[in-house]
Amino acid sequence: MPSGKVSVVGNGPGEPEHLTSRAREAIEQSDIVIGYKLYVDQVTGLIEGKEVVASAMGKEVERCRRAVSEAQAGKKVALISGGDPGIYGMAGLLLQVAGETDPAPEVEIIPGVTAAGAAAAVLGAPLMHDFAVISLSDLLTPWKLIEKRLRAAAEADFVIVLYNPRSRGRSDLLARAREIVLKHRQGSTPVGIVRAAGRKDQNQWETTLEEMTGCLEEIDMASLVIIGNSRTYWDNHRMITPRGYPL
Amino acid sequence: MPSGKVSVVGNGPGEPEHLTSRAREAIEQSDIVIGYKLYVDQVTGLIEGKEVVASAMGKEVERCRRAVSEAQAGKKVALISGGDPGIYGMAGLLLQVAGETDPAPEVEIIPGVTAAGAAAAVLGAPLMHDFAVISLSDLLTPWKLIEKRLRAAAEADFVIVLYNPRSRGRSDLLARAREIVLKHRQGSTPVGIVRAAGRKDQNQWETTLEEMTGCLEEIDMASLVIIGNSRTYWDNHRMITPRGYPL
Repeated sequence: MPSGKVSVVGNGPGEPEHLTSRAREAIEQSDIVIGYKLYVDQVTGLIEGKEVVASAMGKEVERCRRAVSEAQAGKKVALISGGDPGIYGMAGLLLQVAGETDPAPEVEIIPGVTAAGAAAAVLGAPLMHDFAVISLSDLLTPWKLIEKRLRAAAEADFVIVLYNPRSRGRSDLLARAREIVLKHRQGSTPVGIVRAAGRKDQNQWETTLEEMTGCLEEIDMASLVIIGNSRTYWDNHRMITPRGYPL
Repeated sequence: MPSGKVSVVGNGPGEPEHLTSRAREAIEQSDIVIGYKLYVDQVTGLIEGKEVVASAMGKEVERCRRAVSEAQAGKKVALISGGDPGIYGMAGLLLQVAGETDPAPEVEIIPGVTAAGAAAAVLGAPLMHDFAVISLSDLLTPWKLIEKRLRAAAEADFVIVLYNPRSRGRSDLLARAREIVLKHRQGSTPVGIVRAAGRKDQNQWETTLEEMTGCLEEIDMASLVIIGNSRTYWDNHRMITPRGYPL
């Protein structure tokens, strides 16, 4: 029997131009492609003629179990994950599910361009200094812990990257996050918001902590919010956090 | 006169297989390639016959000025940055230098696979939950601020990613960071260290906060240190931070 394998593939922001060669190769060489429907659709051009299992959000555990069992049956599996599979992606769950089996299949994690990196590139250079990445989704994390992390990051002047700014369609999570950060940072602090970063339907907003209330309703699950540190500024529509080089 | 442009290109961890299509294209279409020597050497295969300006570490400002002036003279410039140019990379400095000129040249930031993402993929899945990214380099940042951020990140149970764990050859910075984190986290907390992540000469260490003192001397500028949160564990040599899915 041929030995199977699961490749957890980061497809980056979604356009093929941001796919790495290794990710492309793993998809092309796979026997079966498994993923959340949106991400599978993003690699349509690479998977013609292959077996495809595209499922809905919320079916993460099922996708991982399927990937593991297909690999155990000898197939080369490409499990597609948005952005970088190692950052809030499928890498962890797949390793957990694989670790429960014996013998566990071979697993390769193939990194991709993160949502944070793609959004930062669109905005300018907001992540030139220390930053904290926080998901506002309270589906799997108690809100109290999310608040504690927001406070800590705000107090210590980290640039703050917010994933899942609208969890379960709730826009109040981001409004509450804003209130917490405002206790430690000026209202004039730059805030950059990018929707569908690196994709053709990309949108962006140039705002501040004070004024961002005006775009709260437009922010969705595909958006990423970056709040500057005390030295971040907007210059000609570019969000820049200086690293500190003397110029 | 043809209109010039600077593409700030993320070359990822260093092997061509982790380069994105967009990054490869920008390098191939450039008239001149500028970068820190190590990063330029990593893309040797793509730059044959091109004008190349490879310079030493510490020459960052000069490289950006050169890139801007070449673009103003009408050339397509590829400014190579390690990992993702937007994360402690060249994107910010280039935008600052370009912003001082009039008219400023066109600038495109092309994201790449980050050092953190590459290291995480090697270790398993340590970045499945909120994380803080901190550089231990005190060349441009006061050590007091670095300490404050380490304390905040440790207290709020962030996974902690340490860039530049050995600044100016000093191994005591990492030892001091470890002491700070140990005040808020168990000695048994998993620590993963990766040197030259995603490259052929890659090395990795599986350790804990308590035991990592044993490898402090082997850690260098090309290493990245990831300290788990209170729920991170090692399982069959994979570092996993659970996201919290019920299994």
